[in-house]
Amino acid sequence: MRQTTGWAVHAPGAPLTPWTFERRDLRDDDVAVTVHYSGICGSDLRAVRHGDAASMPLVAGHEMTGTVTAVGPAVTRFQVGDPVAVGNVVDSCGTCPACLDHSENWCYAYPTVTYHGKDRVDGTMTQGGFAQEYVAREAFVYHLPPQLDAAAAAPLLCAGATAFAPLRHWQAGPGKTVGVVGIGGLGHLGVKFAHAMGAHVIAFTTSQDKAAQARALGADEAILSTDPEQMNAAQWRCDLILDTVGAPHRLDAYLRALTLDGTLCTVGIPDQDWQVDPMSLLYGAKRLAGGGGDGTRRVQEMLDFCATHSVLPEVEVVPASDINHALSRLEANDVRYRFVLDMSK
Amino acid sequence: MRQTTGWAVHAPGAPLTPWTFERRDLRDDDVAVTVHYSGICGSDLRAVRHGDAASMPLVAGHEMTGTVTAVGPAVTRFQVGDPVAVGNVVDSCGTCPACLDHSENWCYAYPTVTYHGKDRVDGTMTQGGFAQEYVAREAFVYHLPPQLDAAAAAPLLCAGATAFAPLRHWQAGPGKTVGVVGIGGLGHLGVKFAHAMGAHVIAFTTSQDKAAQARALGADEAILSTDPEQMNAAQWRCDLILDTVGAPHRLDAYLRALTLDGTLCTVGIPDQDWQVDPMSLLYGAKRLAGGGGDGTRRVQEMLDFCATHSVLPEVEVVPASDINHALSRLEANDVRYRFVLDMSK
Repeated sequence: MRQTTGWAVHAPGAPLTPWTFERRDLRDDDVAVTVHYSGICGSDLRAVRHGDAASMPLVAGHEMTGTVTAVGPAVTRFQVGDPVAVGNVVDSCGTCPACLDHSENWCYAYPTVTYHGKDRVDGTMTQGGFAQEYVAREAFVYHLPPQLDAAAAAPLLCAGATAFAPLRHWQAGPGKTVGVVGIGGLGHLGVKFAHAMGAHVIAFTTSQDKAAQARALGADEAILSTDPEQMNAAQWRCDLILDTVGAPHRLDAYLRALTLDGTLCTVGIPDQDWQVDPMSLLYGAKRLAGGGGDGTRRVQEMLDFCATHSVLPEVEVVPASDINHALSRLEANDVRYRFVLDMSK
Repeated sequence: MRQTTGWAVHAPGAPLTPWTFERRDLRDDDVAVTVHYSGICGSDLRAVRHGDAASMPLVAGHEMTGTVTAVGPAVTRFQVGDPVAVGNVVDSCGTCPACLDHSENWCYAYPTVTYHGKDRVDGTMTQGGFAQEYVAREAFVYHLPPQLDAAAAAPLLCAGATAFAPLRHWQAGPGKTVGVVGIGGLGHLGVKFAHAMGAHVIAFTTSQDKAAQARALGADEAILSTDPEQMNAAQWRCDLILDTVGAPHRLDAYLRALTLDGTLCTVGIPDQDWQVDPMSLLYGAKRLAGGGGDGTRRVQEMLDFCATHSVLPEVEVVPASDINHALSRLEANDVRYRFVLDMSK
């Protein structure tokens, strides 16, 4: 077995501390990656604060960029020294319709997630990317385009994929108007992607400050969602709305802001049911969709798109040794817009 | 003005009684239709039982088949004697994106509905199809294919359009599995249409009796939605589910029954919010859609489809003079599957 060190939580809510643990020896199609940068996602925060005590110690982290340090004998797409990235899915059944579509994140048998997942070969629990090294199957490792800054690129692996997938699926582009609700980790990427795709972008936000930020990120307009007059004026305007807000909220006004046949795609995960007025969905044959992450084909496409269009998240890079402070600030919503850990510090 | 007689309600909940009222003189693009058959829809029942007292007397009815008896001088598509049909929309703004798409039922300025609508020319209130004659703009009158039985065809104008539109939009056909929830007025047409389009059809129902009916109507399978085991086995199976149930109910099990990227289209209108578990929508990038009726292009396409594929609703034809009895039976859910009034009796 290979030894590595990471930042582990030993009990729900406890501070993360350095921990030495084992990675598996490389299987034939495995790639070993030295992790240079690791993004912090809201789901990491939930895992270390409210995760299952019986599964701890736990190393979270599922947005990694780094360099290949070793490859198994059957690996064909990577060599030692390649800049790479690993996201939130590291294996899947490979045979269901979702896997055959390379939407492995929706594997009908549930994918093996990057941490707190069950390895499909030996049944051990996966440990995540807040660590010096990760080992994953080649099929779930991505080429990191060399033009991309490796620190800023890390959040693309989860936040980026989550924002990019619905925009591509619902064909954001020239002639389309795309709304983005919430200008945070996911939403600021939604604005950047939709703008880079050529869509007319409307940011929906609750503050003048965020409205100004959204315009600076590429939004053509910003609408204060707290102003009923502005929301009424938005009726029938958006072909697609990407709703990135994780807190419970009403969707009716956003459904009204859709065009005929428009789609409201929610990627936040509130801890209670969506409540939807049937008429706001019915009138105009509108749609409420869900999404989160993406499969291997489109994650690579997204990374290549970022290289071509110079799209990167806005990040605060902090030393890995400051992880507990960063988690506390994330908990207080005090980050613009994503934290990235420098794993060398 | 033209005089006609119909069955009007004079106060919410009161019995319908014969009533003589006026239709407008024909405008240049108007068509006068002698109504032979008029379907009874659930929304008619709501209108006469719980409608606005200030707008009564009211003549309901929005599913008519009949014959052209007169045309305005600018009418080009119809002649006296043509078999025709009129549905639930009789005018619209004509200039919004929905109207330009011939989805006039979703006119951004709201369409003029067949009864209790406001005429766009003179501001008078429209009166519906439980009457001897109807007058409508040519653009909102349909050719009734001569192969279709005029009595059975009447419910196609609302129930038919409502069931047909999502099946066409979401491309029900060979290689697709379509679920239909609820085997009533809308659902039995959903089964017939989806079967005629070549899809594999799964009926979801609450009773063995309805399951047998669904199979007789063309369903390949019937699943008891009250049986958790059968519902679990349905997971990931349906590309599209048409949910026709108007009473409040949970949608999660139907969302789970969708494939990756599948759509649950609701056409019932419960009197409370849909409550949707975010995860059941998110996992598999699924969609909850709304629908109801259709615009002029696709309603004609639907009628032609029915002629080509010999699809007709199952109806109970009753004399118009029995309208109050029929409404009471509809209220008790005692109809298989739609009532049609014979306006000559």
